[in-house]
Amino acid sequence: VTARCIGLDWGTSSLRAYLLAADGGILERRHAEAGILAVKDGAFDAAMESLIGDWDLSLPVLASGMITSRQGWVEVPYVACPGGAAALAAGLVERRSERGRNLHFVPGMRCLSGDGVPDVMRGEEVQVLGAMAAGPQLFVAPGTHSKWIDADGGLITRFSTYMTGEAFAVLRQHSILGRLMTGEADDAAAFERGARMGLAEPEGLLHTLFSVRTLGLFEKLPAASLASYLSGLLIGTETGHAIRSRPAARRCVILGAERLAALYGSVLRLAGLESKPADADVAVRGLHGIAVSRGLVP
Amino acid sequence: VTARCIGLDWGTSSLRAYLLAADGGILERRHAEAGILAVKDGAFDAAMESLIGDWDLSLPVLASGMITSRQGWVEVPYVACPGGAAALAAGLVERRSERGRNLHFVPGMRCLSGDGVPDVMRGEEVQVLGAMAAGPQLFVAPGTHSKWIDADGGLITRFSTYMTGEAFAVLRQHSILGRLMTGEADDAAAFERGARMGLAEPEGLLHTLFSVRTLGLFEKLPAASLASYLSGLLIGTETGHAIRSRPAARRCVILGAERLAALYGSVLRLAGLESKPADADVAVRGLHGIAVSRGLVP
Repeated sequence: VTARCIGLDWGTSSLRAYLLAADGGILERRHAEAGILAVKDGAFDAAMESLIGDWDLSLPVLASGMITSRQGWVEVPYVACPGGAAALAAGLVERRSERGRNLHFVPGMRCLSGDGVPDVMRGEEVQVLGAMAAGPQLFVAPGTHSKWIDADGGLITRFSTYMTGEAFAVLRQHSILGRLMTGEADDAAAFERGARMGLAEPEGLLHTLFSVRTLGLFEKLPAASLASYLSGLLIGTETGHAIRSRPAARRCVILGAERLAALYGSVLRLAGLESKPADADVAVRGLHGIAVSRGLVP
Repeated sequence: VTARCIGLDWGTSSLRAYLLAADGGILERRHAEAGILAVKDGAFDAAMESLIGDWDLSLPVLASGMITSRQGWVEVPYVACPGGAAALAAGLVERRSERGRNLHFVPGMRCLSGDGVPDVMRGEEVQVLGAMAAGPQLFVAPGTHSKWIDADGGLITRFSTYMTGEAFAVLRQHSILGRLMTGEADDAAAFERGARMGLAEPEGLLHTLFSVRTLGLFEKLPAASLASYLSGLLIGTETGHAIRSRPAARRCVILGAERLAALYGSVLRLAGLESKPADADVAVRGLHGIAVSRGLVP
């Protein structure tokens, strides 16, 4: 089988490279801890070559993720939502690398939330493209800035960002809530208790957050379990809002990291939704779809 | 007029002392930057004497605020809510100072929120006691951990804490939102825009927080105005939840610091509620009420 295309899934913390056949079959895959934050002085070309230097220079290269952000290699303008493979293909930005590779940088997507404020994503839209089936679907990409993404008929129709992972990190490290946390048990019961509180969210998150302190203060939760409780509280709060604003949703596809995917799956179950994890190769499948749409793959 | 009692309003950042007549009239007032965080090695007795050493040793002293917390001079157990002057008077903890003063430490209050989780306050209950009128009233004490407090018939009936001030501080100092903030204008229009977003809170705070980033990214708000926007967003979110859970409330008394009081007043106005600031002496009036209830003042 002949290689026809190279896909780069290049995010904040890692670079994944794929050598693809015409039908998108993966001929070879490689991985480097060369996320954009680890590459110094903009040396992205060298970082790429050190991973795939022996792959055919004549193959088109498609790259998606934070590599196309202002902090990445080439900043690519966002494409408007709703949109799918054709819109992303039309928005590709081309560059020639030092060794003469044809590089195609994939845009991120922007949309106007229901609240009239812009929302943005970079990388998740390609994963969704690679995971789409027929009919309406709901996706969640958990993380520092989680994305809930609606798709239908091959198009991404809407999405919204939740700063859940970052809120967890800053509250644990820098707020009074973190000061009560000594040790860290992986306490599933505390996580579920937090998730139920978050799903119900009486009086809002700014209020329920204080329960982390009082449950610790009154010794209703051990100090080592408070981080699990906070994690459940935040993921539950996020999930509750996301599904209340999508009342027709019955199931959800979870993109991304295994441990977080399991936590989100358990919260979705508490909320009465089915969920399943997407397979690990959705990003490269999305890249292949864009390459086909652009006519880069024969 | 003869002095009958001494009141100490002793919080995290300051100590206020009042010499009181039998009817609660203030004969003299003093202030020191001797909040409990500024007093080293538990030297609270010395800190007190350095401020009021020349006041009559035979007068009863009532002290409220964080001085009665675990980090303060004497930890006083919380009194249950609903409760008023009589409950707080019954919960006073007595000590004799080194120079022989009769000290009475005022308890904080605890309640079970609608969500079955404990909530607590220390100091605000005394302020409310000093600001109460006939009939049902709603109070807000803005701050690091804001309190919304319901009172009726001389009793505090319910309250809830919102971690608004602390959330603002940690998000501004430690999250990606703060990294966009260069300079800090006091931008009333940006504050109001944030407050309206917070009051409506589409898809929840974890989502609306991301608007701080995207409004900056798309240059819809100047970098120097993002802190005002975030402040409005958080106070609006807090206020929206607090008043939605108190649908009968039409007006609110604002306790505490002048600048924050004005901001909360403007958000309450946007939400359709009247508000007025409490006067500055509510804490000492509350302490006097407790002293009378306990029979410490003839």
